[in-house]
Amino acid sequence: MVEREQKIIGVIGQGRDCSSELLKKAEEVGWHIAQQGAILICGGLGGVMEAASRGAKKSGGKTIGVLPGDDKKTANRYIDIPIVTGMGEARNIIIVRSADALIAVGGRFGTLSEIAFGLAFEKSIVGLQTWENLENMIYRETAEEAVSTVIKMLALEYL
Amino acid sequence: MVEREQKIIGVIGQGRDCSSELLKKAEEVGWHIAQQGAILICGGLGGVMEAASRGAKKSGGKTIGVLPGDDKKTANRYIDIPIVTGMGEARNIIIVRSADALIAVGGRFGTLSEIAFGLAFEKSIVGLQTWENLENMIYRETAEEAVSTVIKMLALEYL
Amino acid sequence: MVEREQKIIGVIGQGRDCSSELLKKAEEVGWHIAQQGAILICGGLGGVMEAASRGAKKSGGKTIGVLPGDDKKTANRYIDIPIVTGMGEARNIIIVRSADALIAVGGRFGTLSEIAFGLAFEKSIVGLQTWENLENMIYRETAEEAVSTVIKMLALEYL
Amino acid sequence: MVEREQKIIGVIGQGRDCSSELLKKAEEVGWHIAQQGAILICGGLGGVMEAASRGAKKSGGKTIGVLPGDDKKTANRYIDIPIVTGMGEARNIIIVRSADALIAVGGRFGTLSEIAFGLAFEKSIVGLQTWENLENMIYRETAEEAVSTVIKMLALEYL
Repeated sequence: MVEREQKIIGVIGQGRDCSSELLKKAEEVGWHIAQQGAILICGGLGGVMEAASRGAKKSGGKTIGVLPGDDKKTANRYIDIPIVTGMGEARNIIIVRSADALIAVGGRFGTLSEIAFGLAFEKSIVGLQTWENLENMIYRETAEEAVSTVIKMLALEYL
Repeated sequence: MVEREQKIIGVIGQGRDCSSELLKKAEEVGWHIAQQGAILICGGLGGVMEAASRGAKKSGGKTIGVLPGDDKKTANRYIDIPIVTGMGEARNIIIVRSADALIAVGGRFGTLSEIAFGLAFEKSIVGLQTWENLENMIYRETAEEAVSTVIKMLALEYL
Repeated sequence: MVEREQKIIGVIGQGRDCSSELLKKAEEVGWHIAQQGAILICGGLGGVMEAASRGAKKSGGKTIGVLPGDDKKTANRYIDIPIVTGMGEARNIIIVRSADALIAVGGRFGTLSEIAFGLAFEKSIVGLQTWENLENMIYRETAEEAVSTVIKMLALEYL
Repeated sequence: MVEREQKIIGVIGQGRDCSSELLKKAEEVGWHIAQQGAILICGGLGGVMEAASRGAKKSGGKTIGVLPGDDKKTANRYIDIPIVTGMGEARNIIIVRSADALIAVGGRFGTLSEIAFGLAFEKSIVGLQTWENLENMIYRETAEEAVSTVIKMLALEYL
């Protein structure tokens, strides 16, 4: 029997046109997620997704990439487990549903769709340099704060 | 051969807890869509979806409902063509992709996910009493203005 | 209020490498579906799907095409209402769920997946020159017989 | 950087009404998959899925369950990583696409849909007491033979 004590944290954010500052933050988010013993789930592609995955792997963590296309080779090279959907943006919903909590790092309209689903499904979501002024979303300044906030929120949920 | 001159306009908005004012607006939106000779597509359930469908039927129009569940009986009674997905909220993407343009009437997080996909896919979207301050979204005050704006935007796209 | 008396009949079958005999049968199936006053739903692309849609339009019927890709222009020119999913083969399930009954004409593995879902969802399915020896599937030789069988089965379901 | 040397093997089969012989075979299949160092992916529910997952865990392996519903608690207790889709049977496609190769153990129409997608996507599939006489599918008698055949086929693909 599986204990399933490992939490799954989703990282959502843009796949391209990222500033180096944003990529640094995403990598730190991934690093801290792994440090906390959680599994990272993301969209499996480039930009924020790749940086976060790299951070998690540098810290010895596990990464899941839920891909929109039909070829696992499209996963970035820091993904341990590629989930191949072939369903385009519908895969965004799978990331949100599979994550115990979410961290949004930057992001455009695709990320906004994920935030919206996350809030609709009543998941804890912490935002870093992302869509602002959304009710029920918590904003933090640093990657470390974002991850520790998410971990605390999950601990409260499972009390 | 089909001429496919009929445009398909999506109406997105909340399925419950609607004020009577919002329902009135939604019904007017549906009425004007049908008056313009366009087909209405929506999520097929209650609230804004039902009111807009009722408006379209009162005006002699056609309605498509893209349902999240697996039973066409869940469609409201103003839906001509129920599309049964069994895919939950993933059906939101199908509404957005199938619509030539969209009108958001009220709405919560589910609607925000649809707006986000609409903007991601570069669809024209007009908002009525809905999520504010979104770039590339056009806001109007009345149902008639919302529909006439959408029709003009589509005419420009197809010039 | 919609009476929704029009049944929706799904036509499933291969999109390419069709013999002229198979295409003729598919076109006849579409023609008879429209003659019976039913709406045709299919995958919206070429081959059997296009031939059946053409038959339905020649007979003055209505056609819905549930597309795998993200562009409605991929619909064949006999589709009145393109439903754009962007979800690849997951759209097969939507065709099956939305149809009141199904007719399989020829077909390969994609069609077999649709037959399997149809049988799983306990839909009436009639086969013409298609996957053989499947329990609960009814086989017919001509398009006219296939359509009249489906219509009778639906009448029984709704008694 | 991930080496991703671990193959992912899908196990498909019915979720209920399994004979004890079938469950025994499914458990052996899971056991041998883990012995070969591969990850098991399945639909995450009961019957064949649960038995195979149990076998993999007994052998120290890793298991992924791609769930149709919207609650990870529906996963059987031998699933390490629940992927929560909320997309009903559309999740069958994700299992097939994510697996490097598949083993069908028993199964009804849902399993037939997965076999059909597997063959459509040109995946290697080995069958044990399942749908018969399908071209391009390989049949074996024992769990050990089924797994060793799948492993050999994958080795050939990656030569």
